[in-house]
Amino acid sequence: MSGQMGTVHGVGLGPGAPDLLSVRADRLVRGARHVAYFRKAGRPGQARRIAEGMLREDAVEIPMEYPVTTEIPVSDPRYNARLSAFYADCTGRLVALARSGEDIVVLCEGDPFFYGSFMHLHARLSGMVPVNVVPGITGMAGAWNATGQPITWGDDVLTVAMATLPEAELARRIRDTDALVVMKIGRNLPKLRRAVVAAGREDVAWLVEHAAMPGQRVTPLADAESVTPYFSILLIHGQGRRP
Amino acid sequence: MSGQMGTVHGVGLGPGAPDLLSVRADRLVRGARHVAYFRKAGRPGQARRIAEGMLREDAVEIPMEYPVTTEIPVSDPRYNARLSAFYADCTGRLVALARSGEDIVVLCEGDPFFYGSFMHLHARLSGMVPVNVVPGITGMAGAWNATGQPITWGDDVLTVAMATLPEAELARRIRDTDALVVMKIGRNLPKLRRAVVAAGREDVAWLVEHAAMPGQRVTPLADAESVTPYFSILLIHGQGRRP
Ligand SMILES: C[S@@+](CC[C@H](N)C(=O)[O-])C[C@H]1O[C@@H](n2cnc3c(N)ncnc32)[C@H](O)[C@@H]1O
Ligand SMILES: C[S@@+](CC[C@H](N)C(=O)[O-])C[C@H]1O[C@@H](n2cnc3c(N)ncnc32)[C@H](O)[C@@H]1O
Repeated sequence: MSGQMGTVHGVGLGPGAPDLLSVRADRLVRGARHVAYFRKAGRPGQARRIAEGMLREDAVEIPMEYPVTTEIPVSDPRYNARLSAFYADCTGRLVALARSGEDIVVLCEGDPFFYGSFMHLHARLSGMVPVNVVPGITGMAGAWNATGQPITWGDDVLTVAMATLPEAELARRIRDTDALVVMKIGRNLPKLRRAVVAAGREDVAWLVEHAAMPGQRVTPLADAESVTPYFSILLIHGQGRRP
Repeated sequence: MSGQMGTVHGVGLGPGAPDLLSVRADRLVRGARHVAYFRKAGRPGQARRIAEGMLREDAVEIPMEYPVTTEIPVSDPRYNARLSAFYADCTGRLVALARSGEDIVVLCEGDPFFYGSFMHLHARLSGMVPVNVVPGITGMAGAWNATGQPITWGDDVLTVAMATLPEAELARRIRDTDALVVMKIGRNLPKLRRAVVAAGREDVAWLVEHAAMPGQRVTPLADAESVTPYFSILLIHGQGRRP
C-alpha cells in the first residue's frame, strides 16, 4: 500500500441534462482520473451517457457490466447470488485501486442513495476505504419539472413505489395517496396501467420518458401506447391546499 | 411595455451547501440583476441565506415578506385569504418587472415544485409572463445523505408526509410504509413522536436538522429532546431487498 488511501466518490449526476449536476459533482467528474459506472453488457450506460463530454482526456474508465440474468427469475436465489458476486467483484476492483492511492468517481444516475445501484457498492466499501457520497437531483424531480406542474402542495402525501410490486398492492397504494411517483416501469407497464385504472386515476396520470434528456416526452397515461422500457416515470400530481 | 418581456426563473438552490446548486442554477443566481425570495418579517430567509456570497454586487433584492398570521388559525378562511392576497401582490410586483423587460430569479429552497412557496407564484404567473423552473436537490436528499445511509432499496415504498397531518393519520402512514420522510415538523414534533411510537418505529427514526448547512445534526429520534423548529426532517430508512 503506497501512502495515503484514495477515496471512492459516489457522485449523483441528476436526471440527465449536463448542467443539472451540482457544482460539487461537476467538479469531481471533470477532475476525475478514474471513472467507474454500471452498464448492461453492450450498452453505453445511462450514467456514462450523462457524463458524455465531461471526462478528462486521460480519464481511465471502469465500466462495471451487470451479469446477464434474464434466464434466472428474480425470485430464484441464484439471481441474488449472481448479483452479489458481481457487486463483490466490483468492490474488490475499487478497493484495490483506492488502496493504491487513487481517487475514483462512481457515476450515479439521479441521487446515489435513492434506489441506486451504487448503494450495493457503498454497503461493501464502508469501513474498507474512504467513501464520499454527493447527492443529486432525482429522476423524479426531473420528471415533475418536465410536466411543468408542482408534484405536492400543502399537506399532500407523496407515495413513491416501484412498478415491480404486485398489482393489487400497487392499486391499493395508488388509491391511498395524494401524489404518486412510480419508477422501474419497463415490462410492468400493462400491470401498472391496470392498477391505475383500478384505483380510478387513469385520467390524471402522466408518463414521463427520458426526463431532462434528449427525447424527453410527457404523455397522458391514457394515450401512452408504448413507453421507453427503462427510463420512464409515472406521476400523479397532488391537488392539496393552496391559498 | 418596452420590447421583450423578461422571464421569471424559479431556481432550486438545493438543501443548503453553496456547491449543491446545479450548474444551471449557479449560473442564473450569479448572473441575476433582480433576485426575489420569501422570508418571515425580520428574518434573513433560508433561500437567501443559501445564496449568501453568490449575488452580483449590483443585484437588486426583492424580499417578499410573509404577512404575520400567527393570530389566525390555519383552518380560518381569513388565513387563506390573507396569504392569497400576499401571493397576488408578489405576483403583481414580479409581473410589472418582467413586463418592463427584466429577468428575475426567485430563490427557492430545495426543489421549487416539491412543497415549495414558489408554486403559489408559479400558478399565478402562468400565462402572464414567461416562467422557467430549475429543479434542485431536495432537502430530504440532503437529509438522507447526512445520515450516510440509503433511503430506499429494491421494492421499498417511500412515503413523504407533512407533520401537520392529524396524529392518527400520521401513525397509520408510518405503519404502512417501508421508508419514511416527514417534513414541516416545527411545533408538531411531540405529535409526530407519539405517532412514530404508536407505529412501533421509534428506534429506527432519525431527525436531521439543517441538512447540508452549517449546524447539520443527525439525532436518533429517541434522543431528540429539542429540534430546530423549521429546518428539520424525520427519516426512517427502508430495509428492502439487497443482493
Ligand atoms: C435504479 S433507479 C435509479 C434512480 C435514481 N437513483 C434517481 O435518483 O432517480 C432507475 C429508475 O429511475 C427512473 N429514472 C431515473 N432518472 C430518470 C429520468 N431522467 N427520466 C425518467 N426516468 C428516470 C426510472 O424509473 C428508472 O427505472
Ligand atoms: C416549505 S418546505 C420546502 C421544501 C423544499 N422545496 C425541498 O425541496 O426540500 C420546508 C420544509 O423542508 C424541509 N427542509 C428543506 N430543506 C431542508 C434542510 N436542508 N434540512 C432540513 N430540512 C429541510 C423542512 O422539513 C422544512 O419544514
